[in-house]
Amino acid sequence: MDIENIGFETINLGHGSGGELTRNLLDKIIFKTFSNPFLDQKHDGSIVKIEGEIAISTDSFVITPIFFKGGNIGSLAVHGTVNDVAMCGAIPKYLSLAFIVEEGLKVSEFIKIVQSVKKAADESGVLIITGDTKVVERGKGDKIFINTTGFGAVHAKATISVNNIKEGDKILVNGFIAQHGMAIMSEREGLEFESTIESDSTNLNFLVTDLLDAFGDKIKLFRDPTRGGLGTVLHEIANDINKGIFIKEIYIPLEKQVAAACEMLGLDPMYVANEGVFLVIVDPSIEQEVLALMRNHKKGKNAALIGEFTNEHPNKVVMQSLIGGKRIVSPLVGEQLPRIC
Amino acid sequence: MDIENIGFETINLGHGSGGELTRNLLDKIIFKTFSNPFLDQKHDGSIVKIEGEIAISTDSFVITPIFFKGGNIGSLAVHGTVNDVAMCGAIPKYLSLAFIVEEGLKVSEFIKIVQSVKKAADESGVLIITGDTKVVERGKGDKIFINTTGFGAVHAKATISVNNIKEGDKILVNGFIAQHGMAIMSEREGLEFESTIESDSTNLNFLVTDLLDAFGDKIKLFRDPTRGGLGTVLHEIANDINKGIFIKEIYIPLEKQVAAACEMLGLDPMYVANEGVFLVIVDPSIEQEVLALMRNHKKGKNAALIGEFTNEHPNKVVMQSLIGGKRIVSPLVGEQLPRIC
Repeated sequence: MDIENIGFETINLGHGSGGELTRNLLDKIIFKTFSNPFLDQKHDGSIVKIEGEIAISTDSFVITPIFFKGGNIGSLAVHGTVNDVAMCGAIPKYLSLAFIVEEGLKVSEFIKIVQSVKKAADESGVLIITGDTKVVERGKGDKIFINTTGFGAVHAKATISVNNIKEGDKILVNGFIAQHGMAIMSEREGLEFESTIESDSTNLNFLVTDLLDAFGDKIKLFRDPTRGGLGTVLHEIANDINKGIFIKEIYIPLEKQVAAACEMLGLDPMYVANEGVFLVIVDPSIEQEVLALMRNHKKGKNAALIGEFTNEHPNKVVMQSLIGGKRIVSPLVGEQLPRIC
Repeated sequence: MDIENIGFETINLGHGSGGELTRNLLDKIIFKTFSNPFLDQKHDGSIVKIEGEIAISTDSFVITPIFFKGGNIGSLAVHGTVNDVAMCGAIPKYLSLAFIVEEGLKVSEFIKIVQSVKKAADESGVLIITGDTKVVERGKGDKIFINTTGFGAVHAKATISVNNIKEGDKILVNGFIAQHGMAIMSEREGLEFESTIESDSTNLNFLVTDLLDAFGDKIKLFRDPTRGGLGTVLHEIANDINKGIFIKEIYIPLEKQVAAACEMLGLDPMYVANEGVFLVIVDPSIEQEVLALMRNHKKGKNAALIGEFTNEHPNKVVMQSLIGGKRIVSPLVGEQLPRIC
C-alpha cells in the first residue's frame, strides 16, 4: 500500500464520523487490505454459515507499546482471539475487527498494524468479515485499541470441558513460558537493545486441530495462560473442579534469557503473560503420544509434561521447586504487568 | 446489587490483570448480572448453535457523555449492535461484551452501565455469552468504551440486498429523526435543563421481524442511519447501486423541539445521528400495508414514506425542500458530532 496515495498523514476525528472521511479511510486502507466476499458487501454486518456448534470469543487489546519485538497490537489481536476460539476445541473461521483510534495516530502506523492483522489472519486461516472504526480525541485514548471477536466451528471430535478432568490426568505445555510478557517489559524498561527476547505471539489453532484429530475425547482441556500467566490459570482450573494440581518447576520450559530478565525485574515467570503458549490436559494413557505429536509441530517443539491432577490437596496448586522444596502457587492478586495484551 | 458488598469503590489497573482482582470484578458484577448457561462456564469463549445463515456485526461505543437522557453507553451498546444484526434481516440471539475501562471509574457508575446492558439485552431478547474487561491508566482512555459483537439467525423469509432495489421502490422511515444526536449535543452544550430531548436509542429487532414475517422478499433493504445521519446513509445506498433517490423534506418526521435545537446549534438534522431509526425500502405494491404495520407497532408509530428510487439522477439524493425548491443531499464530509455512539 502506497502511503502517498492515501491523501492524509494522521487520523483525525472526521475519520470516525461515519461520513465521507470514514468511507475514505475504509476504502483506501481497510477494504483494500482485507477484500473478501463478506467484507466487500460494505454493510454494517456480514452473513456467514457455520455448520454445527459455534465457538465465539471476544477480546479487546490495549497493549503498550503498540509495536514490540515479535509483533504489534495488530498481529496480537488476531492471535489472541484465534487462540481463544481454538481453546474451545474449535477451528477458527472468521473475525470481526473494531478499532478505537486516538486522534493523531500516524496513518503509516495504522497501515502497518492493519497489514499485520491481514498477515496474521491469513496465516491463521481466518477471514475478517465485519468491522468498525471509531476515533477519540487526543488524550482520550492511547494510539489504538483493537477488539476482535472470533467465530469457529467446534471440532467434530472435541469434548473439551473442565469437568472431564480426573485424578492422574496429565498437564502438558507446548513451549517456553513468559516470553510475551518479558518482551513487552524489556521494551518498557528500555532494555530492548540488550535483550533479544521476542514475544511468542502466534496462532495455535493448527496444532490444536492436529491434537483433536489424533486424540479426540482423550483431550480434556485446552487453556492459554495469557494475562495472569501459568500460575493464575492453573489455580483457576484447580478451583473450578475442586482438585489439586502438582507441578515440578524443573519441567516448566523457561529460556535462560527470559529467566534472567524476570530475575532482574523482580518478576515471577509463573505470572508473566504468554501469547503463544497453551496447556493441554490429557488422559494419562496418551501422554507420550501427545508429547511426540507436539514436538513434531513447529508450534510445539519445546513441549513438556509439567504436572498432573491429584485429589490430595483440592483447590491448591503445589509446585516442587528446583531445589526440591514444595510451595503453593497462589493466583496473581494485583497487577504484575498492566496492559500486556 | 448492593454496592457495599462489592468491596471496592473505583476500578483500578489490577482489575484488568487477569488475576484475582479481575476474577473478583467479574464474579461480583458481571457473572452475577448476566448469569446464563453459556456465560456460567466462565471460559474464554462460549459455544452456541445457530441454524442456517448467521448475521454478525460489531461496534465499539465511545460516546461521551456516558450517561444521557434516554440511556447510557451500556444500553446504547446493546441497541446499536442488536439493530445492526436486525438490519441484515436477522433475528439477534447473542452478544459478546468487551469493556475498556479507564482507571478510576466509579464502581457505582460501572454497575449502572452493566445493569443497563442487562436490561437492554433482556428487552431485546439477546444473551450476553462471552466478554472481556481491560483497564487502562488514567488519561489513556475516557471512563469506559464498550465493544459488542452480535450474532443472529437470518430470517427464513429475508432476501435483503441493496441489489434488489428497483426504480420506484419506496423509502420508509419508522419515526422521528435526529433525536439521539440532539439529546447528546444538548447535554454537551449544557442545554439539558432547557431541553427534554431524549435519545431514541432502542431495539428495532422485533419490528424488523414482524415486517419480514408479513412481507418477506418484498422488503429490499433495512438500514439504520446512525453516524452520519439520514443524509449520509441515503447517499451511500444511491451510490452503491448507481440509482438516484428523491425525497421530500416535508415527509421526514422531525419533532419541533429537535428542529429548534438543530437550528440553535447550526446543525442539519439530515446529518445528525439516530439510534432508534431505520429505513425500510420496499416494493411499491406494499407501501401502504408496510406503513400500516409499522404505525401499529410501538417502534413505528410515526412511520412515514419519505421518498423513492429513480433512474433520473443516478448516484444523487435530491430533496424537495419545505418551500418547494430542490437541493442535492451530499454525504457528511468532516465531523459534525464527534463520539456520538
